[in-house]
Amino acid sequence: MALGYWRAGRARDPADFELFFRRCPFGGAFALAAGLRDCVRFLRTFRLRDGDVQFLASVLPPDTEPAFFEHLRALDCSEVTLRALPEGSLAFPGVPLLQVSGPLLVVQLLETPLLCLVSYASLIATNAARLRLIAGPEKRLLEFGLRRAQGPDGGLTASTYSYLGGFDASSNMLAGQLRGVPVAGTMAHSFITSFSGTEVPPDPMLAPAADQGPRVDLATCVEAWLERVCAHLGLGVQEPHRGERAAFVAYALAFPRAFNGLLDTYSVQRSGLPNFLAVALALGQLGYRAVGVRLDSGDLLQQAQEIRRLFRTISAQFQVPWLESVPIAVSNDIDEEELARLAQEGSEVNVIGIGTSVVTCPRQPSLGCVYKLVSVGGQPRMKLTEDPEKQTLPGSKAAFRLLGPDGEAPPSPQWSPSRSQVPCINFGTRPTTHTHTYRVSAVGRAAAGRGATTPGWPGAKGLASRGSGVLYCEASPRGATAATLGPAGTAV
Amino acid sequence: MALGYWRAGRARDPADFELFFRRCPFGGAFALAAGLRDCVRFLRTFRLRDGDVQFLASVLPPDTEPAFFEHLRALDCSEVTLRALPEGSLAFPGVPLLQVSGPLLVVQLLETPLLCLVSYASLIATNAARLRLIAGPEKRLLEFGLRRAQGPDGGLTASTYSYLGGFDASSNMLAGQLRGVPVAGTMAHSFITSFSGTEVPPDPMLAPAADQGPRVDLATCVEAWLERVCAHLGLGVQEPHRGERAAFVAYALAFPRAFNGLLDTYSVQRSGLPNFLAVALALGQLGYRAVGVRLDSGDLLQQAQEIRRLFRTISAQFQVPWLESVPIAVSNDIDEEELARLAQEGSEVNVIGIGTSVVTCPRQPSLGCVYKLVSVGGQPRMKLTEDPEKQTLPGSKAAFRLLGPDGEAPPSPQWSPSRSQVPCINFGTRPTTHTHTYRVSAVGRAAAGRGATTPGWPGAKGLASRGSGVLYCEASPRGATAATLGPAGTAV
Repeated sequence: MALGYWRAGRARDPADFELFFRRCPFGGAFALAAGLRDCVRFLRTFRLRDGDVQFLASVLPPDTEPAFFEHLRALDCSEVTLRALPEGSLAFPGVPLLQVSGPLLVVQLLETPLLCLVSYASLIATNAARLRLIAGPEKRLLEFGLRRAQGPDGGLTASTYSYLGGFDASSNMLAGQLRGVPVAGTMAHSFITSFSGTEVPPDPMLAPAADQGPRVDLATCVEAWLERVCAHLGLGVQEPHRGERAAFVAYALAFPRAFNGLLDTYSVQRSGLPNFLAVALALGQLGYRAVGVRLDSGDLLQQAQEIRRLFRTISAQFQVPWLESVPIAVSNDIDEEELARLAQEGSEVNVIGIGTSVVTCPRQPSLGCVYKLVSVGGQPRMKLTEDPEKQTLPGSKAAFRLLGPDGEAPPSPQWSPSRSQVPCINFGTRPTTHTHTYRVSAVGRAAAGRGATTPGWPGAKGLASRGSGVLYCEASPRGATAATLGPAGTAV
Repeated sequence: MALGYWRAGRARDPADFELFFRRCPFGGAFALAAGLRDCVRFLRTFRLRDGDVQFLASVLPPDTEPAFFEHLRALDCSEVTLRALPEGSLAFPGVPLLQVSGPLLVVQLLETPLLCLVSYASLIATNAARLRLIAGPEKRLLEFGLRRAQGPDGGLTASTYSYLGGFDASSNMLAGQLRGVPVAGTMAHSFITSFSGTEVPPDPMLAPAADQGPRVDLATCVEAWLERVCAHLGLGVQEPHRGERAAFVAYALAFPRAFNGLLDTYSVQRSGLPNFLAVALALGQLGYRAVGVRLDSGDLLQQAQEIRRLFRTISAQFQVPWLESVPIAVSNDIDEEELARLAQEGSEVNVIGIGTSVVTCPRQPSLGCVYKLVSVGGQPRMKLTEDPEKQTLPGSKAAFRLLGPDGEAPPSPQWSPSRSQVPCINFGTRPTTHTHTYRVSAVGRAAAGRGATTPGWPGAKGLASRGSGVLYCEASPRGATAATLGPAGTAV
């Protein structure tokens, strides 16, 4: 196709493309635009290297002119202008997430990379925002999905944009290292099953938290606490699995200030919980505070309620007030429905780890963005087709969102703004007017600002009223400039 | 967790993990194991660089011993042994796709990368194999999904493993360049809409295919053919869009030996088809053969039937026999159900481009592989838990598949082999016997061999009987060795 443009003498014709989606994902009423940073990074470094050109030569007709390959070798995005919704903006069907202008051949070549970089990022950010809105502002949401992601880079993208959408942290260390996403995790079942209880730790001694006083043999101290805990719980002291306890002790020796216990390797009530309590109380005696427990199977809500009840009674029994509020984390194929259950009023769950449901977006694993030519040489262009949904609007657009006289988003599409409030899409060389009224159902971290109160689902009225009558807008006729790439590929 | 192992003096304990899935994807009866090549490549180069270790130091407790970081810096997979089902094997629930042995700390660290590399690759290969079985051996299947993939690497993985699973080619050029996947594609709608028909090509002349005789002005020749085609179709010569025709001419000038037409930019019957025919017949006059048409909207099957009928009548009318069999390609959100319709007997569709449905696997976007510790220091390990489905079988396994006396896979799980045929899972140090009988419903390219007749869905009996009584097997008690990594990370 690039060769077709080049042979037709049109490689450098000025062209405008727009990237948008036709339907909000997940049957919802909004999306978050994301991936802009990755697009800018891609455009800045876009070049065809010798190896790339050689490969293209191997698949193109053998009589292709050398001058065409010279043209490809010289390509970059120094003449490309990118306009975009800011990262994390609310986005709606038909509204351009990106507007890409530049020489026809190069902006055509950008189609697939830009679609790939924006679609999944926006999908993940939207998915994460939905999950955040369901969870409410208080629950800590962790992204645990790298192992279930569609390829390693899918995992990195998911970790990055689920954080944008409202998650608190990821278990993906590379996302921490490369993207600054906070990292968090607990132990694996295999860490626990690797211990039989016969292992002898090279150094079982632990110094008190305040570093004052003698070092203590933690394992011995744990055994003493186990007796008291088992007596309280009505369990035989032989019941809790010794291998599991050895694993907890090993973990506590390595992370005395960050001890947490995964409870369901053998049995939560008869093993995981008493072992955790024995280790946590032994650490507590030395001035350390356990940071949490995690459940990974069974009825997570019901178990959390029971564990909190036990934390309270043991806290009272042994006079360790901090134990009462040790965070309870849960994981195990949590989707929107299960999350709503875990986040219900009165739930004792504090931390929720979500993997598959956030990274692969099972309800709709692709956003379906398209990238359409809207003008060439200043002349509007459209795809007509016989499928009305696939027809495009010609010309570059500026989209405005209108709010009612009360500063609110219109409550429904039936709302009719007065004529003076209406005009909202300019079609480049073919100015006309359209009314787009959007109902905002929800937004995530990016639009809401970190820590803002999330006003329910649906609703989000505080957010819908940001800005004076325009929620997201392209202030100039061509839209807000996200990045204009200068001659040397530098941002202007 | 690594620090926990290291502090406990267990970093170098010999350990065995197994990677498997618990349920076949897509509600089906099989999966294809894939991703092995990527795993081997990863293991060969696995190292923690200085930057990685510095990042880990920034998130680990500040009093972590420098010796631990030295241990991390020295890590590699030279002591790791990987055993695996060969790439593209049939795989079933509970049977290890990978068996990973080596020092406890390092094989634990491999958990997430190996899961990430195997799960999606196997899912895609399985998905592609299902689509191939539905399409039958004759249809050409193209993977068009990069723009809808979950991240750029997801796209590359999808292109690679959909080829393994039975697709013929991909539109992802990078998969061609890096992985040797055949590449194929057509033009985009934007190529067509970019032409208004007023453009003047710098060189409209085309030499005949045999390079004998004078060069011809292709556009003029096309206009002459258009009149004849329109007369035959009963269309006014002004009806077909001139911009579309100009785009087809430009494409034909660039690719006279590979001309194909995307027909639905304006109207298939009233524009795309007559324009294509005019260009194809003009090219034909010069000795070139058009290679196809593509439809991207509407009722694809019905349109293909109609187009083939027209190809036949025009072929007879103008005495151009080659036109009759010009391949018809279709695309547009094709899933398993639509594919079955397009592949039905009598369908005139020849080439099917599938994007979203193959790369994102919407019916089930993750395979759900797990990586479980099965022994440490030669002692079997298991996860018990209170959720029976999540319990693991301890010890390294060798899995055999048994066939009946007739050399066939058992027709149903009710089939009872005689005692002498039964023993089939060895549990490392705890030998025991289990009966696993699998029903093979389908396989793709990898298992079937390229070009093998696919014996229907379900069934695949020719494949089920490959090998003498064992379809896939671990011949030694520890399984077939896929790659043993030597001291310098070289394959042994």
